[in-house]
Amino acid sequence: MDAVAHRQEVKRRAVLAAAAELYADGGYRATSMNDLAARVGLSKPALYHYVSSKEVVLVELYKDVLESSTDAVAELERTSTSAIDALRAVIVQRVAYTCENRALLRVFFEEEAGLPRDHLAVVLKARGEYDEAVMAITLRAIEEGSLAIDVAPRIFVNSMLGAANWVYKWFDPDGRLGPTELGEEIAGVFLGQVVTRAVRE
Amino acid sequence: MDAVAHRQEVKRRAVLAAAAELYADGGYRATSMNDLAARVGLSKPALYHYVSSKEVVLVELYKDVLESSTDAVAELERTSTSAIDALRAVIVQRVAYTCENRALLRVFFEEEAGLPRDHLAVVLKARGEYDEAVMAITLRAIEEGSLAIDVAPRIFVNSMLGAANWVYKWFDPDGRLGPTELGEEIAGVFLGQVVTRAVRE
Repeated sequence: MDAVAHRQEVKRRAVLAAAAELYADGGYRATSMNDLAARVGLSKPALYHYVSSKEVVLVELYKDVLESSTDAVAELERTSTSAIDALRAVIVQRVAYTCENRALLRVFFEEEAGLPRDHLAVVLKARGEYDEAVMAITLRAIEEGSLAIDVAPRIFVNSMLGAANWVYKWFDPDGRLGPTELGEEIAGVFLGQVVTRAVRE
Repeated sequence: MDAVAHRQEVKRRAVLAAAAELYADGGYRATSMNDLAARVGLSKPALYHYVSSKEVVLVELYKDVLESSTDAVAELERTSTSAIDALRAVIVQRVAYTCENRALLRVFFEEEAGLPRDHLAVVLKARGEYDEAVMAITLRAIEEGSLAIDVAPRIFVNSMLGAANWVYKWFDPDGRLGPTELGEEIAGVFLGQVVTRAVRE
């Protein structure tokens, strides 16, 4: 990427981040492209240079969340030595990412009605694939004997993801726990607390 | 309530139920009072006889959820013989109610931005009181020795409520489990499965 393209991409990211904040505060439909232009200090024609329509902004925000979620699961599976470690890491990542991108996740969870119909189908498919990936890791953790649950795996997985996603409603950035620490605590609710390896081994 | 008042109240409930469906499908802001009048088969003046404004409709929907949630917790506390039984019943109720009123709960969780500012404060206060009531029951269950957790009670409670609330995103009314059964399974994730008393005693 040359310097101009790089500057453009940086500005485009800033536009999307500002859009997430505005939509999270006032709702997608109530926020105009004028509002967005004002927030990022661009004229409206200049704004359209970065994002071609209001709908495109929303679609891009959804794409961001889905891509980073899918990439994270693939990476954590690759780098974990067991299914239970991978599952724990996925929950920690999910919580931490949600805490660090609360405005974006509020939009992601609450503005589906604003998506163009064909794109909604894409979003639901990708979200389903994410859930299936977490389900597959959970089943492997059960198989390897490191996770014992007495409910259906689907209900366990949905409860875990529900608890992890729900932090967008209540995480307090000024609170006692940071994003990753909170992730570890929530993973602990479902997977048990990790005793430090020094103690365990 | 005389017969006329009763008929009026029945119609008013039907208007609110239709509004919940419409807002859940297309979003609160995108849905007009014309859409609502058409859905319930009323002229617009007739509709305004039941609900005085679009904002009032939204406020009423929030009030419904909050009142029934608070009433349910008080009732379940009154009728349970132990804190752990009360806590389990609260989670089952929360899940079942959410499954049975998915459209209403989607509005409740996703349309805060549409509430008048002073009413938003009322909603957040009432929601906080609900959470505190569940927290108090959880602490009593720990004290009575029937619940052992190794995370902070606040994180445990928020995880439980998150998992319970999240069913509005994924409950399948055509699925294998009904609302109450799903509630029992989710309560089991957090509080352990109940062995039938005949076996236990």
